[in-house]
Amino acid sequence: MHPHLAPVDLAKAYRLLNHGPTVLVSTRHAGVDNVMAAAWCCALDFAPPKLTVVLDEATRTRELLEGSGRFVIQVPTVAQLRLTEQVGNHSLKDDPDKLAKAGVELFDLPDHDLPFVQGCSAWLACELIAEPHNQAAYDLFIGQVVGAWADDRVFSDGRWHFETADPAWRSLHHVAGGHFYAIGEALKAE
Amino acid sequence: MHPHLAPVDLAKAYRLLNHGPTVLVSTRHAGVDNVMAAAWCCALDFAPPKLTVVLDEATRTRELLEGSGRFVIQVPTVAQLRLTEQVGNHSLKDDPDKLAKAGVELFDLPDHDLPFVQGCSAWLACELIAEPHNQAAYDLFIGQVVGAWADDRVFSDGRWHFETADPAWRSLHHVAGGHFYAIGEALKAE
Repeated sequence: MHPHLAPVDLAKAYRLLNHGPTVLVSTRHAGVDNVMAAAWCCALDFAPPKLTVVLDEATRTRELLEGSGRFVIQVPTVAQLRLTEQVGNHSLKDDPDKLAKAGVELFDLPDHDLPFVQGCSAWLACELIAEPHNQAAYDLFIGQVVGAWADDRVFSDGRWHFETADPAWRSLHHVAGGHFYAIGEALKAE
Repeated sequence: MHPHLAPVDLAKAYRLLNHGPTVLVSTRHAGVDNVMAAAWCCALDFAPPKLTVVLDEATRTRELLEGSGRFVIQVPTVAQLRLTEQVGNHSLKDDPDKLAKAGVELFDLPDHDLPFVQGCSAWLACELIAEPHNQAAYDLFIGQVVGAWADDRVFSDGRWHFETADPAWRSLHHVAGGHFYAIGEALKAE
């Protein structure tokens, strides 16, 4: 179904987020799927891999995540610029057709009852580590990564290949108000 | 002393980190200054601005930060690639000459008893919001941003200008093992 989807060793899953991309957060609960954009997502630990994500209490995604205890963090691409902006600016609370209008197509993976977004470069399936104080005081959620995958056209052998892949695969880095930067040139410190 | 250093409105301070750069963390306590690199730093709130940063318990920076309750998060540039790699790979515990060897030059700002790193593109002075459980369980530290500045050659009017500034000003985004990407092309979602 997805010939380029390749598993990523959990010990290297942090590399999918280490360069600070804006992400998509997807959730499923009680028959409802949703996807939102989030710039405030960050690796937290290597092994087992953990991450943080900030989810405003007004979001439907947060309600679903608190209901199911599971979510997907995925890395959208330059080709998904409009999709990313749309799912970040519209709420499922206001528009039940949000995902279709933004052009989101979902797919399933075995053993994970979660909605994965087609066309992303990487996916991290997470289980919520409940920290009620962080969630209430800071809107801060901690997830343990229990599965990781990438599109082998842009990430393989534990490394991103932005410098050789089609530029449409580059990650998005939101600043504010729909202004993004794509990731750029590769550099190696001596 | 620093003719291009311009204050950043605290309401827009999150924009200095929103695109996910690798940062430098600097601290001062009991007469000791230190600087380390950290890829796991993320905005947490808009007003008052807050951020998170992950600091391994083996680091001298963490000891100093826990001592003083204050730190600076700053955004290094492509011109500081070697410096960033060096302060990330060497500990003051092993080498008292670490900062000099890495080429770090520090400067002071009025009313902030903190060491600021010359040549960065942005600086956020932070006060620790003590959260002992997060610090012990996750190495996760929360700071409230109490002052923000940027070099007006690359950030002004509340916006980054990577697309028009000299490429040496671009932010660094670490993946692993000294492999970085610079931030790249500007994109605007319609």
